[in-house]
Amino acid sequence: MSIYNFAAGPAMLPIPVMKQIQDEWINWNGMGVSVIEISHRSKEFEALLAENDELIREVADLPDDFEILYTHGGAQMQFSMVPMNLLGLKPGNIAQYIETGNFASIARKEAEKFGHIEIIATGEADNFSKLPDLGQVNWNPDASYVHLTSNNTLFGTQWKAYPDLGETPLVIDATSDIFSKPIDWSRVGLMYGGAQKNLGPSGLALALVRKDLLGKATQPCPKLMDYSVYAGNHSMANTPNTFALYALNLIMKWIKAEGGLSVMEERNQTKAKTIYEVIDGSDFYQGTAQEADRSIMNVTFTLPSDEMLQEFLKESQAAGLYALKGHRVVGGARASIYNPMPQEGVDALASFMKFFAQKRG
Amino acid sequence: MSIYNFAAGPAMLPIPVMKQIQDEWINWNGMGVSVIEISHRSKEFEALLAENDELIREVADLPDDFEILYTHGGAQMQFSMVPMNLLGLKPGNIAQYIETGNFASIARKEAEKFGHIEIIATGEADNFSKLPDLGQVNWNPDASYVHLTSNNTLFGTQWKAYPDLGETPLVIDATSDIFSKPIDWSRVGLMYGGAQKNLGPSGLALALVRKDLLGKATQPCPKLMDYSVYAGNHSMANTPNTFALYALNLIMKWIKAEGGLSVMEERNQTKAKTIYEVIDGSDFYQGTAQEADRSIMNVTFTLPSDEMLQEFLKESQAAGLYALKGHRVVGGARASIYNPMPQEGVDALASFMKFFAQKRG
Repeated sequence: MSIYNFAAGPAMLPIPVMKQIQDEWINWNGMGVSVIEISHRSKEFEALLAENDELIREVADLPDDFEILYTHGGAQMQFSMVPMNLLGLKPGNIAQYIETGNFASIARKEAEKFGHIEIIATGEADNFSKLPDLGQVNWNPDASYVHLTSNNTLFGTQWKAYPDLGETPLVIDATSDIFSKPIDWSRVGLMYGGAQKNLGPSGLALALVRKDLLGKATQPCPKLMDYSVYAGNHSMANTPNTFALYALNLIMKWIKAEGGLSVMEERNQTKAKTIYEVIDGSDFYQGTAQEADRSIMNVTFTLPSDEMLQEFLKESQAAGLYALKGHRVVGGARASIYNPMPQEGVDALASFMKFFAQKRG
Repeated sequence: MSIYNFAAGPAMLPIPVMKQIQDEWINWNGMGVSVIEISHRSKEFEALLAENDELIREVADLPDDFEILYTHGGAQMQFSMVPMNLLGLKPGNIAQYIETGNFASIARKEAEKFGHIEIIATGEADNFSKLPDLGQVNWNPDASYVHLTSNNTLFGTQWKAYPDLGETPLVIDATSDIFSKPIDWSRVGLMYGGAQKNLGPSGLALALVRKDLLGKATQPCPKLMDYSVYAGNHSMANTPNTFALYALNLIMKWIKAEGGLSVMEERNQTKAKTIYEVIDGSDFYQGTAQEADRSIMNVTFTLPSDEMLQEFLKESQAAGLYALKGHRVVGGARASIYNPMPQEGVDALASFMKFFAQKRG
């Protein structure tokens, strides 16, 4: 039986990447030892890191005026690092946050420790089932930055485009859709993402930041919270998460070999459409996000009763369709279909959903 | 040819642990997926983390009044977290640091950002070849804590016992000798260590802290710098480094199966003695640490000339004895022989050293 893993993160990695890790586990790069057993300062590991930079620049078409930072901890570490590093860009210590669900709120609450934070748009009134309208927003020209979460993994919503903020840097938490589609860098000041959804294992975050935004960290700033320290030391001021950087290397090569971000987007669109069509074609399943704002990364839906949901989760698991349980805050079911999820996995899920609805609907 | 890897960290893992990781890489715990592909909130992963706690308590004989924290980033993140969390224990914001080399100095400099730091003892006059005499120290009763580095990986020195500070908590950076021998917890307020030497891959630090020391973090404290946040969320306030926690699980089981920390100490003593005997029995090699303070984790030595050192490094590498180059700050050669290094590796190194000295001496 094939197994398809719909976990929201940590999530599945591409099968060829997993196989390569296994194959070269105790003999990486012909060195006779594992990649996790060598010094991060060895020439072999430094070459890997340099290659990561090249792959990211090429695959994501990242402009030269952006710095690539590999940071500890994941997105929630960034929730602190963003205000600590960027609030000082303007004298008022002000930032504006757009709230589209759970993680956007956590990011905003963390930022409130360090400055004056304005919530300029929120989807709360609609229980985050749709994205707020940015047409009515009172942009504050004194804001050091505006923070937006590109994709909401809990409620299954996703921004299709980013607002043009003129001079104000847009900071994007792209943890759940980074490198799932091409990026318009002209709209971005900083894009960050925990690795554990589209980019590999957990314990690493990527921060892609416009170089002119560096150097304004709060004082005193803990050394490993300071973007400038990462930028000045090629992210090796201390021992980085070498395993995650190695996995990232393989994943970037895989994305490139598969055809890059536009191919990823095309596939992700098709995968999402496959499941949304089942939802829309049935009275049994109900999508939780409004159609215009639906995510192509996390497809969220409910069933007619909790009893049916429990049965659905149990039977899908038995059928090799794993981790379809929705987030504890939202409930229901959720299929996370990041880059590594193949169309076959989504086809299998769609068939199972139709079968289950027929049987129980 | 057998390969023995003397890297200082990231360092070798026990061979059975590496093999188990490889064997169960794509089917962990009978789940059909990898341990790095499942939610940290799944019952399987929560069970793994709970088992880690039990293993640490049992193997290290850790008292109940200590909290086990699994933190992001490694020891250098702790260099910030220690002062941010503990300086507030007494009103003066004072801490005392003992300097025994490079990393102790980095820890002290980081702490200086957050409070008034006194260097109470330093080995600098002896170029850190010996540990400073603590008999003459002016302990400050107003100090919130005293910081000590238990083993110096660069200069090859190691404390054989920890000072009794009475009421003042002793904070120990044990990155390079944690769980290499039994620990006298009555002398410890907080012991921390990056995982990448004795405990697995990089990107994780263990912090074992007396519970009564929690709750005094600097305000505002970034969420993931606050020990209380880790303590209150079983170290899962956000997605932890799941791969490193899994490797830690296997390593703790390996230590336990091998007989625990007293067996580790016995073996480490024997391994170190094997190499020190070669050094002391030759005019060719010169130990860099003074005899009384020698480390059983990192054996550091020099050769008569840089030319001979380069040859030594080249030929040892060719003979399957890897990563013997000393740290860039100190030069010379270094054999790091943490728990996972078997006696056979050390025997092979000793033979090679004798052979090389005869040939070139």
